Amino acid sequence: MEYEGINGAYSLKEFVSKLPKPRTIWLMIPHQTVDELLKQLVPLLQKGDTIIDGGNSPFKDSVQRAKKIKNKNINFLDIGVSGGPEGARYGASLMIGGDKELFGKYEYLFKDLSVKGGYGYMGKSGAGHFVKMVHNGIEYGMMQAIGEGFEVMKKSPFSLDLYSVADVYNHGSVITSRLIGWLSQAYSKFGDELNTPECCLGKVPQSGEGQWTVETAKELGVPVAIIEGAVRFRTKSQNKPSYTGRVVSALRHEFGGHEAKTNEE
Amino acid sequence: MEYEGINGAYSLKEFVSKLPKPRTIWLMIPHQTVDELLKQLVPLLQKGDTIIDGGNSPFKDSVQRAKKIKNKNINFLDIGVSGGPEGARYGASLMIGGDKELFGKYEYLFKDLSVKGGYGYMGKSGAGHFVKMVHNGIEYGMMQAIGEGFEVMKKSPFSLDLYSVADVYNHGSVITSRLIGWLSQAYSKFGDELNTPECCLGKVPQSGEGQWTVETAKELGVPVAIIEGAVRFRTKSQNKPSYTGRVVSALRHEFGGHEAKTNEE
Repeated sequence: MEYEGINGAYSLKEFVSKLPKPRTIWLMIPHQTVDELLKQLVPLLQKGDTIIDGGNSPFKDSVQRAKKIKNKNINFLDIGVSGGPEGARYGASLMIGGDKELFGKYEYLFKDLSVKGGYGYMGKSGAGHFVKMVHNGIEYGMMQAIGEGFEVMKKSPFSLDLYSVADVYNHGSVITSRLIGWLSQAYSKFGDELNTPECCLGKVPQSGEGQWTVETAKELGVPVAIIEGAVRFRTKSQNKPSYTGRVVSALRHEFGGHEAKTNEE
Repeated sequence: MEYEGINGAYSLKEFVSKLPKPRTIWLMIPHQTVDELLKQLVPLLQKGDTIIDGGNSPFKDSVQRAKKIKNKNINFLDIGVSGGPEGARYGASLMIGGDKELFGKYEYLFKDLSVKGGYGYMGKSGAGHFVKMVHNGIEYGMMQAIGEGFEVMKKSPFSLDLYSVADVYNHGSVITSRLIGWLSQAYSKFGDELNTPECCLGKVPQSGEGQWTVETAKELGVPVAIIEGAVRFRTKSQNKPSYTGRVVSALRHEFGGHEAKTNEE
């Protein structure tokens, strides 16, 4: 990518040395790798530098990491990022946790990276990833409801054209949403069967955030039958693919550019 | 309303006599009253007249009614209408079932009444109400997922400003939707507690379409755990109000202008 004008680095040391001070480092990496990276990265930084975790880290990890990192006089923000590749290109939705003053310092950056109106200060460290976790829990439930509804229509005695149904749903109905829009896109590309392997296997992977929402809800004493049902469906779908699963996979494919086998958002 | 220029009638006979022939009559009445009205209305009509049922009738009733009415050489269309009062004012979403030729004859009207792109021919008689029924089933599930997620956030250790959360969710995130938009409206009007009696009782009424979706799914052998869970929640909520229920009620209030006690969409 360097030939396209992007400034690359081949080691963390080189990377850190190339940044202007105070440094701002925005991580977009799988949450399982954050601790290992921080272990190597933090010793290379100086007082006043800032680390932003824009991945899908569990919020409790972010609370702990913020504490540790701030103890070394390095700043930390946890940011939930939603919007998929479309968001990366045309503006994402940013849910920001950490010190409010630090949020203010970087607000210009959030404004640049998000769609108009698409960023907000959610609260102290962990709040950004907490709000993003719940976002994904809601997303699981919404997608599952859509999947079920379209399987009912697929198996109905009316030979429905599911692209037309999704398209009408997405113009003026109460369930108008980006998800329904993505579904009509998927139907127009892959047809009503949604059996193209690269888009829509009936086995639906999960990133973990649905499950974390359920666990958090239990700790807080909040019943979440719908979100829990959606998580359980995905687990079961590994051995029991279904049309509902194909719809959910097709949605993930459309908003995430997810191959059926991959795992993020 | 007549002083505002609307042409009224004080009996069905007067109503029918005032219409130009061939007559077009669009019903927007509770589904429980359709048969009684048809019993009185049909004898007053002539060959070539058209009845449109734009209410939330069960699709099997519409299949039967279409048969009976067409036997008398009167035309019949079943149309699922979504969009709430906003839709009535600025354009609805119309899902149309019946003879395709008849659909074509009235297409100019559907175009006028719907948002741009917001109407479609779904199939033979019953298909319009079938697609609308499933729409409402999906709507139940989506609303329930949103309710659960916001209750988790309400009870979280982060003092979240739920208006801000809904607002960021609705700008660029994967769950951007009219429903999330209505929720941010509700929070801005009623505050995070959502305990204003006229908008958001935790007891959530149902119009029947969620339940019908579940029954239809069973007949078709489609598992619909999420939609069923959402229906069951509403039933239980009558004796067990909750914050999730308040969120769902607030959504119904915003898109439907529903008072907490009313029953439609």
